[in-house]
Amino acid sequence: MASVIARKWLLKKNYEGTPKREDLEIIEEELPPLKDGEFLVEAQWITVDPYQRIVTGVGNVIKGGQVGKIIQSKNNDFAVGDLIFGYYGWSSHTICDGNPVGHIHGLRKLDPSNPVPPSTALGTGDAVPATAYFGFLDICQPKPGETLVVNAAAGAVGSAVGQIAKIKGLRVVGFTGSDEKVAYLKSLGFDAAYNYKTISTITDALKESCPNGVDCFFDNVGGEFFESVLGQMNTFGRVAICGAISQYNALELPKVHPVTTIILWKQLTVKGFIVTRWLDQWPDAFKEMTQWIQEGKLQYKELVFNGFDSIFDAFISLFKGANIGKVVVKV
Amino acid sequence: MASVIARKWLLKKNYEGTPKREDLEIIEEELPPLKDGEFLVEAQWITVDPYQRIVTGVGNVIKGGQVGKIIQSKNNDFAVGDLIFGYYGWSSHTICDGNPVGHIHGLRKLDPSNPVPPSTALGTGDAVPATAYFGFLDICQPKPGETLVVNAAAGAVGSAVGQIAKIKGLRVVGFTGSDEKVAYLKSLGFDAAYNYKTISTITDALKESCPNGVDCFFDNVGGEFFESVLGQMNTFGRVAICGAISQYNALELPKVHPVTTIILWKQLTVKGFIVTRWLDQWPDAFKEMTQWIQEGKLQYKELVFNGFDSIFDAFISLFKGANIGKVVVKV
Repeated sequence: MASVIARKWLLKKNYEGTPKREDLEIIEEELPPLKDGEFLVEAQWITVDPYQRIVTGVGNVIKGGQVGKIIQSKNNDFAVGDLIFGYYGWSSHTICDGNPVGHIHGLRKLDPSNPVPPSTALGTGDAVPATAYFGFLDICQPKPGETLVVNAAAGAVGSAVGQIAKIKGLRVVGFTGSDEKVAYLKSLGFDAAYNYKTISTITDALKESCPNGVDCFFDNVGGEFFESVLGQMNTFGRVAICGAISQYNALELPKVHPVTTIILWKQLTVKGFIVTRWLDQWPDAFKEMTQWIQEGKLQYKELVFNGFDSIFDAFISLFKGANIGKVVVKV
Repeated sequence: MASVIARKWLLKKNYEGTPKREDLEIIEEELPPLKDGEFLVEAQWITVDPYQRIVTGVGNVIKGGQVGKIIQSKNNDFAVGDLIFGYYGWSSHTICDGNPVGHIHGLRKLDPSNPVPPSTALGTGDAVPATAYFGFLDICQPKPGETLVVNAAAGAVGSAVGQIAKIKGLRVVGFTGSDEKVAYLKSLGFDAAYNYKTISTITDALKESCPNGVDCFFDNVGGEFFESVLGQMNTFGRVAICGAISQYNALELPKVHPVTTIILWKQLTVKGFIVTRWLDQWPDAFKEMTQWIQEGKLQYKELVFNGFDSIFDAFISLFKGANIGKVVVKV
């Protein structure tokens, strides 16, 4: 067989502030012939997610999931033509020994009879959907009739959290960054949605939309947003800290009011989490979320960037707040 | 019987900043004769605690527990001479109908055969000891071999938390406000103790005294202290927010760095609590703590102020940070 050139996005130096194109480089690498037990994957769909900003060390390929097709194989369990989900990051071609990479769900075959398109595996069968599912259900411990507030609500995680909360019978209030996204959230069934850029204050919006206070808060943003929502929470409220996108790219963080007094008096539970803590339960989430999508209960939107070279643009779009739904790259 | 004049400390106006003598007034009130079923209590020991700053509304007697002696009775269950714990606040004489006041543990007889002096009921059979017991055991979920950090550590709650942690097999590091208190904490068995006024930084002290990081943090202080300890916590650490004494008297709070990123990455659980949430379990705590005192495992120190008129001085001493142990007033 002809030799294959793999193209890979490497982190060249640590980001300072907003990630810049020159922080990364694309390298080309001629792959060796397969050994027994190995197969060669060609990336078809590659995921970009905010967490990728922080999980990859300098000199390494950016980590993350991809949907790929097997184009050569010396492994009896994986045949040429098989579609797989693999944790191969921003790499066009990868040689695998048949073992999962990264974590126990770092490799699995995709079912070709699944009516859901394979790219959705990046949004329903990976860290992001597991984050929405477990972060909300396990940390927020929602009860029907309660009120959830979620920010960055039109993103891949936020929009899933809001919809799962509707499935579970909660009142759902979302905050997002454009009027178009507000309309999107309302189309998903959110009871109220706000463009945080055009409202007077988050507190006023919460007073208007949460007449019975806030019981669950799924925070993707941090900073002053966190502080404002805490002020409207009910006694024994639960806060899942999933992300702090207001903070990731900040070179110097603005200070905020201390929050311990409010956590004390309202007897709040505030928990940070990283989704790998539920790694052994991920398949349960993938199964239930895929079923919800098939039943039309969970709407799923993709924003597709085209071409391996567009990965950085796709990634940086996550921090500009212009996207709706899960951002993926069609290689 | 001769009529009895009750003296009571009333909150005249809301505190601004540090409580001032003129925020309170002592009133005198002639009590009516007892009706059937009633008894008259004369206060012997009155508790002062920081939480009293916030639980009493203007025009009311300052709330809290007291140990009193029954001096008149028309109630068959309570005889003249009985010692009781009652939730009668800063009041010299109180007429009671035999029902608990304030909450279900607001009235109980003290056992005269108990070798522990009756004043200790204020420190082992009231909100403060229950706070130490449940706040630490329930919220921090300590495991033997783990490390606890507690601040305001020489106070009634802090010194009990540290000692309970030693009973449970933890490494215990305390922060307090004088060298005398540091010596006291070491005499209680704390593994390390610091005078926060004379160390360079809390972070440096923690790095020195917690080589394996911090697993449990019992916070009575808030503000920058909270932020510093979070920085030294281990993954899956637990934080009990019990108080925020750095904040209660502040007219304008200094801002702090946002903490959600650290809560997220360390997957911390931060819980605020008010001890009445475990009201039905309080007697279990009182029983176990009294036994620990009798066995010498839990040392208990009182600072006694003398006379009903000294209550305000006793109370304000709590905010000056000069005391060791539980502050009580001998009426």
